[in-house]
Amino acid sequence: MNGAAARMPEASAITVPVPLGDRAYDIHVGRGLLGEAGRRIAALGARAAAIVTDENVGPLYAAALAASLEQNGLRTATIALPPGEATKSYASLERVCDAVLAAKIERGDLVVALGGGVVGDLAGFAAAVVRRGVRFVQIPTTLLSQVDSSVGGKTGINSRHGKNLVGAFHQPSLVLADTGLLDSLPLREMRAGYAEVVKYGLIDDPAFFDWCEKNWRGVFAGGPERDEAVAQSCRSKAAVVVRDEREDGDRALLNLGHTFGHALERITRYDSARLVHGEGVAIGLAQAFRFSAALGLCDEADARRVEAHLAAVGLPTRLSQVPGGYGTVDDILEAMAQDKKVKGGALTFILVRGIGQSFIARDVPVDRVRAFLQDEITPSRP
Amino acid sequence: MNGAAARMPEASAITVPVPLGDRAYDIHVGRGLLGEAGRRIAALGARAAAIVTDENVGPLYAAALAASLEQNGLRTATIALPPGEATKSYASLERVCDAVLAAKIERGDLVVALGGGVVGDLAGFAAAVVRRGVRFVQIPTTLLSQVDSSVGGKTGINSRHGKNLVGAFHQPSLVLADTGLLDSLPLREMRAGYAEVVKYGLIDDPAFFDWCEKNWRGVFAGGPERDEAVAQSCRSKAAVVVRDEREDGDRALLNLGHTFGHALERITRYDSARLVHGEGVAIGLAQAFRFSAALGLCDEADARRVEAHLAAVGLPTRLSQVPGGYGTVDDILEAMAQDKKVKGGALTFILVRGIGQSFIARDVPVDRVRAFLQDEITPSRP
Ligand SMILES: NC(=O)c1ccc[n+]([C@@H]2O[C@H](COP(=O)([O-])OP(=O)(O)OC[C@H]3O[C@@H](n4cnc5c(N)ncnc54)[C@H](O)[C@@H]3O)[C@@H](O)[C@H]2O)c1
Ligand SMILES: NC(=O)c1ccc[n+]([C@@H]2O[C@H](COP(=O)([O-])OP(=O)(O)OC[C@H]3O[C@@H](n4cnc5c(N)ncnc54)[C@H](O)[C@@H]3O)[C@@H](O)[C@H]2O)c1
Repeated sequence: MNGAAARMPEASAITVPVPLGDRAYDIHVGRGLLGEAGRRIAALGARAAAIVTDENVGPLYAAALAASLEQNGLRTATIALPPGEATKSYASLERVCDAVLAAKIERGDLVVALGGGVVGDLAGFAAAVVRRGVRFVQIPTTLLSQVDSSVGGKTGINSRHGKNLVGAFHQPSLVLADTGLLDSLPLREMRAGYAEVVKYGLIDDPAFFDWCEKNWRGVFAGGPERDEAVAQSCRSKAAVVVRDEREDGDRALLNLGHTFGHALERITRYDSARLVHGEGVAIGLAQAFRFSAALGLCDEADARRVEAHLAAVGLPTRLSQVPGGYGTVDDILEAMAQDKKVKGGALTFILVRGIGQSFIARDVPVDRVRAFLQDEITPSRP
Repeated sequence: MNGAAARMPEASAITVPVPLGDRAYDIHVGRGLLGEAGRRIAALGARAAAIVTDENVGPLYAAALAASLEQNGLRTATIALPPGEATKSYASLERVCDAVLAAKIERGDLVVALGGGVVGDLAGFAAAVVRRGVRFVQIPTTLLSQVDSSVGGKTGINSRHGKNLVGAFHQPSLVLADTGLLDSLPLREMRAGYAEVVKYGLIDDPAFFDWCEKNWRGVFAGGPERDEAVAQSCRSKAAVVVRDEREDGDRALLNLGHTFGHALERITRYDSARLVHGEGVAIGLAQAFRFSAALGLCDEADARRVEAHLAAVGLPTRLSQVPGGYGTVDDILEAMAQDKKVKGGALTFILVRGIGQSFIARDVPVDRVRAFLQDEITPSRP
């Protein structure tokens, strides 16, 4: 596979720059980029690369990546971890750091994350702390990681106190989003990532939401629409990250749909058989719109339109669609209160005035949330 | 103890600024600062503090610190770890991070490291990664940590591949060096820290080395000389750190004596019953001077003077003083080659042209080191 790729003409790629001063980097988006990874990564000037992947992705793509790197003069070593959220643990951090050190990665060398958000978050964190920081490259292999987790430099693992509570801000040196790799992604994961694509339209880009309604089939089918959706999502996320790298301000808008979504993930104990992150986000996006409509902030028609689009691609939008149940209103409220976005006890929400018109609402009264959730679980009157 | 301290007049302190732009902070040095810690830390504007300490230091000082913080309106929680180098582990990192999260430390809050370099390195690293970074305060309780490890922002833990190989650059928000706390420090630890004090004179401050020769008794006895020695050491280290925060350049001068020293620590398997870090540094400093003299770079008289001063305070200066032996010349060379300061395979040494005249020598030929070590282990001819 790699031999052929190496002789192929350069894959055409869309480049999205992330202008973060001395931490600036490019995201390249396009089909076939894996075959050129060696050339592009070698240009960063390292002598060795530790490839971190998982046991689903590794067998599909790690050998091709290693061959491409080695053809370009980099020494490689590959570390494959079990797939799944449980891999974002202290134990895996130790395993990856020690493997990276065993691979004699020095300060000018690289860690390459080849996988979804789990691998990217973990490998990025390991890169941030091995020798107090080595560079890393993201090769995201899920739609979610191509449009979200590989951009912005948030890395980390989970603690028993909650998700992503231990980590570092560590920007990659390069992101290669090969959209062809998504061909092997299970449909359910594809849909979950798509929830984040839609989110960018809902945050501040109504034209992109229109585009999604018209072009989602091409995104799923793998046509040029897929590259365009990934690139546009990266542009959106990069713009927010550049304004607020360390999440002190309006980077919080990226959490649209996530306050409800995280609560559901917590309630379902991060059991991906029941709910994956993007499904929680899809329900959360629909709820953020319905909640905003209930508060009189946003038109009911917008809420219905958002829900209709998410449902069209096969995403859940209602609490009743959580397999195995979602507990009581109090369970949801409690799960929300544990969220790390609670500052000084007050509930912060991302609400909307319409499609593409989100804003940060601080001090949202808990009883308004309670009343809304009560309505949500009451079977709707005919 | 704290009640009295709270009514006492302000302890007189020497302040050493560390001007690192938006990461600038002050080091305060003086006897009795622990009693004022609450007031000084509250001024940083946090609402809660997690105190990290060890089981030797905790029983002596943690209650006084907690009381002082609470009197100044901060909520506290204390985490005490077993003393010793083995505590700088992944397992302890997990324990501290989870305890800090359990203490509901949010992004505006603080971690306070109360202990020696082990506690400071570990707690600082935990602060760097909990919620992707919370602030931390160093209250160093060993001479080594007051003059060295608490200044400069290097934090971390050990890996099975070597010491301090996993960590972060994370500057403290404040350092309180209460020199009175050293009264309870075992003499052996006091001496070990003193090796680092001497080092600053040897690097680039011959007048300070003169001062040390004249005033070391006061440093050990706890007179005003102790405060002066700590403050002057912090000034020296701060100056280097400000020039080279991330150790890309002449921060390496701080490794004077450490290439030999680390090799001995590795050979003695970091068994502090045999050799503590500062003892390794003392032998390493003496060796760096003898090696420089052997290379014709430095006057033999300077090497003898350095050795005489280290010996006067009770520090070892010769390989033969390593209890339990130091192995063969090859063992030492191999231990050196594993040092993380090896870049691209070449041996980097800090050498000297005299007292206070150190420099970075890259590509020191291994056979010169071998010949020198051979000489060192040959019983000296009368
Ligand atoms: N850092 C950030 O800013 C950020 C943002 C959003 C989400 N995240 C994190 O991302 C994680 C979720 O990421 P994810 O959704 O990519 O999950 P994931 O990494 O678990 O991948 C989902 C599944 O797809 C498999 N897979 C990946 N690529 C494949 C491919 N090309 N072909 C076949 N199978 C493939 C994986 O092995 C896994 O089983 C969560 O831990 C979340 O916290 C981080
Ligand atoms: N971060 C840096 O820049 C840097 C620089 C130099 C060394 N270090 C690290 O520092 C560590 C060594 O630090 P250390 O020498 O302070 O060792 P340490 O923290 O192990 O303390 C030495 C011993 O003294 C005890 N102790 C501490 N304060 C005491 C007090 N006031 N009274 C009585 N007992 C007390 C401790 O419990 C311990 O048993 C090493 O891990 C080394 O790697 C870090």
